[in-house]
Amino acid sequence: MKINKKMLIGLHLGNGYGSQSGAWRMPGVDPMSYTSFDARVKQAQAAERGKFQFLFLPDGPGAVMTDIETEAPAFNLDVMMTLAAVARETEYIGLVATGSTTFNEPFNLARQFKALDVMSQGRAGWNAITSSGEDVAANYGRRIPSSEDRYGRAHETIQLIQSLWGSWGKDAWIHNQKTGQFANKDQILPINFQGKYVSSRGPLYIPPSEQGQPIIFHAGGSPNAHELAGRFANVVIGAAFTIEDAKAQRNIFRASAKSYGRDPDEIKYIPGLMTTIAKNRRTALDRRIKLGGDSLIQRLGYLQQMLGVALDPSRINEPISKVQLDVARPSRYDPRSANALKIAKEGWSLRDILAHGVIDYHPVIVGPGVEAADHMQAWFEAGAADGFWISPDVNADGIDAFVNEVVPILQERGLFHTEYEGKTLRENLGVTDQYGIDPRV
Amino acid sequence: MKINKKMLIGLHLGNGYGSQSGAWRMPGVDPMSYTSFDARVKQAQAAERGKFQFLFLPDGPGAVMTDIETEAPAFNLDVMMTLAAVARETEYIGLVATGSTTFNEPFNLARQFKALDVMSQGRAGWNAITSSGEDVAANYGRRIPSSEDRYGRAHETIQLIQSLWGSWGKDAWIHNQKTGQFANKDQILPINFQGKYVSSRGPLYIPPSEQGQPIIFHAGGSPNAHELAGRFANVVIGAAFTIEDAKAQRNIFRASAKSYGRDPDEIKYIPGLMTTIAKNRRTALDRRIKLGGDSLIQRLGYLQQMLGVALDPSRINEPISKVQLDVARPSRYDPRSANALKIAKEGWSLRDILAHGVIDYHPVIVGPGVEAADHMQAWFEAGAADGFWISPDVNADGIDAFVNEVVPILQERGLFHTEYEGKTLRENLGVTDQYGIDPRV
Repeated sequence: MKINKKMLIGLHLGNGYGSQSGAWRMPGVDPMSYTSFDARVKQAQAAERGKFQFLFLPDGPGAVMTDIETEAPAFNLDVMMTLAAVARETEYIGLVATGSTTFNEPFNLARQFKALDVMSQGRAGWNAITSSGEDVAANYGRRIPSSEDRYGRAHETIQLIQSLWGSWGKDAWIHNQKTGQFANKDQILPINFQGKYVSSRGPLYIPPSEQGQPIIFHAGGSPNAHELAGRFANVVIGAAFTIEDAKAQRNIFRASAKSYGRDPDEIKYIPGLMTTIAKNRRTALDRRIKLGGDSLIQRLGYLQQMLGVALDPSRINEPISKVQLDVARPSRYDPRSANALKIAKEGWSLRDILAHGVIDYHPVIVGPGVEAADHMQAWFEAGAADGFWISPDVNADGIDAFVNEVVPILQERGLFHTEYEGKTLRENLGVTDQYGIDPRV
Repeated sequence: MKINKKMLIGLHLGNGYGSQSGAWRMPGVDPMSYTSFDARVKQAQAAERGKFQFLFLPDGPGAVMTDIETEAPAFNLDVMMTLAAVARETEYIGLVATGSTTFNEPFNLARQFKALDVMSQGRAGWNAITSSGEDVAANYGRRIPSSEDRYGRAHETIQLIQSLWGSWGKDAWIHNQKTGQFANKDQILPINFQGKYVSSRGPLYIPPSEQGQPIIFHAGGSPNAHELAGRFANVVIGAAFTIEDAKAQRNIFRASAKSYGRDPDEIKYIPGLMTTIAKNRRTALDRRIKLGGDSLIQRLGYLQQMLGVALDPSRINEPISKVQLDVARPSRYDPRSANALKIAKEGWSLRDILAHGVIDYHPVIVGPGVEAADHMQAWFEAGAADGFWISPDVNADGIDAFVNEVVPILQERGLFHTEYEGKTLRENLGVTDQYGIDPRV
């Protein structure tokens, strides 16, 4: 590990309530947060108070609404409009949104992310993904293309967009009122990009931002994702349940970057972490039980499969018996099973085991801040992560809980910065400015 | 004319400088206004102080940059990001942006305008246009489709988008924390729109705004535009140089609305007006001369064609001679010619004739506020306009000049409202709320 290297932290900003589906019903939560831009701004400001490097706004594009009767859609009304609002009312935090390369006109993506970059004084990042859900495709009147075509189009789209971003040279915008020269035409060049999937003449009509142009993020874990991220991305939004898996994934992305002639340190691997931070484990578990409601117990059947033992719903408040624990084996089909068994062996009731979030989308910390800090330190120091994107259970108080209870511990341990390094996202992520067209392309 | 009917006023918000190409160089103008969202917000607030009903942001999409060496591009960096910023820092003014039906995925347009509508508490309007510039098409790697295909796609795109906007019933969003019901699934329906050009399953995942859904605007004067606007639009962004032409156009749009079974009063015809407001004509002309610089005199050749007489550039500071004025005839090929001849006959120098803006894109008022008020009153009372969209010469002080010098006169004459009628754009334009799918479709 490099001396003085610090971890990066991002905040998952989704539907305005938090990562747990019951978040919208909690006391103290504005039930209309889904449509409230005030709520997003307040949450972004809380993360900025905690010196988070960036906000991460996932997107389908388009939200699945299968459980709309009882649950909020997962995403923002519109990620770009949300970040435009946040850009005006924050100063340092990076603004990263998902934008599908499958269902967007590249020129439209280019102008909107560059506009965000300019309006935020150089704090924009684009999570360039491909879309794979047929429900999303149906909203665009299409079917999902083959994986080859999706990634083929994604590579071209990123190239095209980086070229448009770079179509104004660093000093192209003169705006000299005395001489009457608005711009140096020789430094504003068409891109004449002609691909198999996408094309554009250009140039874009937007001057460089304070960081030149937005940073590329990518989310995904397939070989296609490794390749795309290795070629273009500075940050990978990852998902891993174990330190070993995270380490392996991080190394694959680093190797991929190297294969494209890049310094592996140019790509940061950031897995997810879900948090319920409270003064102690019991209080945190009770909060999760309240959040989960009936849906918590409905997961018992799945826990059974993870552990390979029959679990009795009528004994939901009792621990798993010694006899059963002796025969329980973690399922090889679910990487979360070992952790579930470990929790079970600590003697928690079935309800409490589930309340630990053993069946959630990422590792979950349910307990005091120090437990989150320990988890993050262990992963970071093992080379399993360059940082984490945090999904609090309930945004209304969960971001503050992380900022107040976890961040100071990380800072005391020298693992997290105490001030922003600069005002642009590139400065705060340690990524060099980018002007003109990426020479790698 | 209906009793108590008032005119509507919109502000043209473009590149941040103003409608005159020299605006960016004027004293007191921030030469970086092109990238300044602060500037846009300030300008929007100035218009709101003047009780303007709406801001109008044109878009190509994409800006032409042929004169980038000396002139700013004509449009905003991104119209939606600009309006997102403005939405958060204004309260009443309507937010109307151009969105091309030719070069956007309908689902993306639908979500972004609806998000704007929700974030502004019901103040959004969509100027649904077709794109016809090959330079724009080239940025999308295409050619401009035939007029039939462009308008065919436009009709379908608006239908599809209004259906998506209406896919949540008025009371679909329950968000009842006690019962745990987030939404009423029975009131959220797929649209299953299957067109020749565009398709979408839906539903959209965004609840209704305070006005239900955004208002449709249209800009254009062709038979295709008459038909599209007559079918869908509540406001037409028009362009007419004479009261007769404006009256004829307004009547055509009204007749088209009627042919679609609508009340003609549901469609408002709003031609443009450009303004240089100063304490008197001389001061206003001097301001235009300073703004125009050398480019003013370069238009002499064209003025010659408009009047049918030879004009000597060396006599730029002299009026046209009596002999020449006697033989001068307004060109039948340019509807601005009669006005140019009228100005010439008033005895102004060649430079001053040009400084009157006789070759500009819309009628131009160069003089004290009362001249603008007189123009607007005459057109309004003749049934030539339901209002005007105003393009000040220089936004930095030109909006304030209009608000301070023209608006009070219109209000005194009972031609313009003194307070906003409500908080939504529909309330302020007198358009009924729209929920669910438009029954006309």
